[in-house]
Amino acid sequence: MITYELDKSNSEPLYVQIYTKIKADIEAGAIKADEKLPSKRNFAQNLGVSVITVENAYNQLAAEGYIRSVPQKGYFAEKLGANFTAEKSAEQSRLSAVSQSSDDENKLFPFTIWAKLMREELSNNQVSLLKKPSFEGVYELRAAISRHLKQFRNITASPEQIIIGAGSEYLYMLMNILFGNNYVFAVEEPGYSKIAEIYANYGLKCERIPVQSDGIDIDFLKKIPANIIHISPSHHFPTGVITSVGKRYSLLEWASGSPDRFIIEDDYDSEFRLAGKPIPSMYSIDVMDKVIYMNTFSKSLASSIRISYMVLPPKFLRKYKEKLGFCSCPVSTFEQYALARFIDEGYFEKHINRMRVHYKKCRAELFSRMKQFDIFKNSVISGADSGLHCIVEFKTDLSDEDLLREVSTLGFRAAMIKNFYHSSAKEDLHTLIFPY
Amino acid sequence: MITYELDKSNSEPLYVQIYTKIKADIEAGAIKADEKLPSKRNFAQNLGVSVITVENAYNQLAAEGYIRSVPQKGYFAEKLGANFTAEKSAEQSRLSAVSQSSDDENKLFPFTIWAKLMREELSNNQVSLLKKPSFEGVYELRAAISRHLKQFRNITASPEQIIIGAGSEYLYMLMNILFGNNYVFAVEEPGYSKIAEIYANYGLKCERIPVQSDGIDIDFLKKIPANIIHISPSHHFPTGVITSVGKRYSLLEWASGSPDRFIIEDDYDSEFRLAGKPIPSMYSIDVMDKVIYMNTFSKSLASSIRISYMVLPPKFLRKYKEKLGFCSCPVSTFEQYALARFIDEGYFEKHINRMRVHYKKCRAELFSRMKQFDIFKNSVISGADSGLHCIVEFKTDLSDEDLLREVSTLGFRAAMIKNFYHSSAKEDLHTLIFPY
Repeated sequence: MITYELDKSNSEPLYVQIYTKIKADIEAGAIKADEKLPSKRNFAQNLGVSVITVENAYNQLAAEGYIRSVPQKGYFAEKLGANFTAEKSAEQSRLSAVSQSSDDENKLFPFTIWAKLMREELSNNQVSLLKKPSFEGVYELRAAISRHLKQFRNITASPEQIIIGAGSEYLYMLMNILFGNNYVFAVEEPGYSKIAEIYANYGLKCERIPVQSDGIDIDFLKKIPANIIHISPSHHFPTGVITSVGKRYSLLEWASGSPDRFIIEDDYDSEFRLAGKPIPSMYSIDVMDKVIYMNTFSKSLASSIRISYMVLPPKFLRKYKEKLGFCSCPVSTFEQYALARFIDEGYFEKHINRMRVHYKKCRAELFSRMKQFDIFKNSVISGADSGLHCIVEFKTDLSDEDLLREVSTLGFRAAMIKNFYHSSAKEDLHTLIFPY
Repeated sequence: MITYELDKSNSEPLYVQIYTKIKADIEAGAIKADEKLPSKRNFAQNLGVSVITVENAYNQLAAEGYIRSVPQKGYFAEKLGANFTAEKSAEQSRLSAVSQSSDDENKLFPFTIWAKLMREELSNNQVSLLKKPSFEGVYELRAAISRHLKQFRNITASPEQIIIGAGSEYLYMLMNILFGNNYVFAVEEPGYSKIAEIYANYGLKCERIPVQSDGIDIDFLKKIPANIIHISPSHHFPTGVITSVGKRYSLLEWASGSPDRFIIEDDYDSEFRLAGKPIPSMYSIDVMDKVIYMNTFSKSLASSIRISYMVLPPKFLRKYKEKLGFCSCPVSTFEQYALARFIDEGYFEKHINRMRVHYKKCRAELFSRMKQFDIFKNSVISGADSGLHCIVEFKTDLSDEDLLREVSTLGFRAAMIKNFYHSSAKEDLHTLIFPY
């Protein structure tokens, strides 16, 4: 019989825990379509909970269409859309590879200082905390980001050019509204799936441009009708490719070819350069107001802090205001003030430095563990100096699935790079991603 | 020469204050296109600031295209798109009429209790605060909202059906993604302009349905191709119309006519019923999983708290998860926990009650002041029992603009209802909105 470990000390009710686990098993295929679920009584006994608890979980699952009740016979798992199961499990493996490290990150987050700043803001700043900020966000935070960008990224942006958002995805949504259906977006292939998902969800035309060893394929770009390219030149996910300076100029040249062309520079983890010289942002070398710069604190601070921002080129500000000036800033005023002080008082820089040291250590440990196993012999590691993971290409005849299973049994956390490709022809690439 | 009062104790730099005021004047037409601005030196002297301060303000305005610099001659206001000035000033008068009261509201907000809860969360809940919540939001908050809805709105919704968002506009954006281009939206005419703006900005088809004395015009609805109607049956903005029970059933009947039809019930200020019996929500009388219920705490708590939520019908949960399960919850974990306790410990209910008492008092004062002036004689007041404003239809030959000017000189705060109509034929309606 299915057995789950339930956590009675958890604040989540037991029925929710059971519900969540069964749902996950059905989505993952661990419970097959039409498989009979244990009877309420037996299951309750097995889990050491009341029959009502199991009943509540079953009812919720039935209401959501995950299981069905057959009178006199019991409960059976429903057949989920093929699309659903396959996509979700791919998505889950992607996400887990990328985000499992967030618990580690959180341990490094200087919660005591953050809490102290928040407490001080609560005590001293009541009037401001209750004032609704302008659509761009709290001025103090935008000023702090402006100073930070100048100092650490050599980006000159006045606070007026900075717009605060609630996480990267929120900014992607704003881009949709800002440009809308008249533009064709292009994203990187492979890439961070959420970007394309958000654009595609809106029914926007969204092209995919292959990533080469020095950035996206410009010849390809020139052949497609895209106007807006959304790229991460500092550090491409998942390949770790850094766009070369030459290619950056070519991309700017491409953008100059039409007043409708723009570049979204997604600098989401540029803070985590572990070696080498800093790479100038595309924003800082753009003199034609073609580059919109984005970054987020959810990666660099803590995943529960949903604050991101973008820098608009000056010429863009009016267009932005006309189109989106009516939107309220979605981020709590309170955390905006706390973050402004966190940056201004040097804690953000300190935190980033500690994170870098931590990840360097993790990387060294990972590499030394890799050396102990034959399967890593002759493999090629790339993208190891920026971001929080590296790419390993194996010399092997194993399928990617078997390869992943193999390294997993050796105790490594990894994901298949082929899952980050949108194209459905999923041939084996013998390449895995290893988070630090 | 233009003279502005600057606030040197304000945390906003002086140049930003100058910049903001000039920009507002240009947008409002107070500074006309091609009008020469004062020279930097004279203006600086007049305002009692340094020349550099004025220069910074002018530079920012020039960068954003509000003014232009003519060598040897000085700075001149730019001509803004006709569209821009007209729309923006209409928008501003709308917004100011509706939101000026937010300072009052904020005074009523029990900040001390809120701060206490936040402090306690900071001290006791570190692990949870740093955990990234699921896409639906923090479970504790969803459970608290579930209990609140049952108790105060007689809505039965499990925590699993509740999705937390960052303000109403964020939820509107999610609706766009959820339904997308294949659906035709319809909103109320007149109505809260942001709803239609967000839908229209995405390039979605968006129809407008006239509001009658008992809700939207069903005959009209049946003639247009809309599938999704976004309505506020508890209290229509700005007319204050409450959708009759009969019409609610007709709308549900309409929705049952096709599997593609849905109703978004925007219950945004249902808490502020000042008289009469509570009206059952459409969600609570829907047995076909056709109604998506929305509400926000930005109205009922404080405008700086950007937390909203929606209740999805059970059959919808899987569709939602498939389409939007990859999106992170945009609201800070921290405030979600604080709000959960604020609701569970009874503070939210107390706050709403205080607000109601406050607005009843404001309403009484407004009515008694109205009685003192001839212009209100024979005028008809409507929509006074729900929401935070009333509608007054005047017996007058004055144009709406003159009417507004008249009541403004008498010291009333008001807005023209015709500005809330989307249709461009803006005939005089002799009707103004008065916020309490």
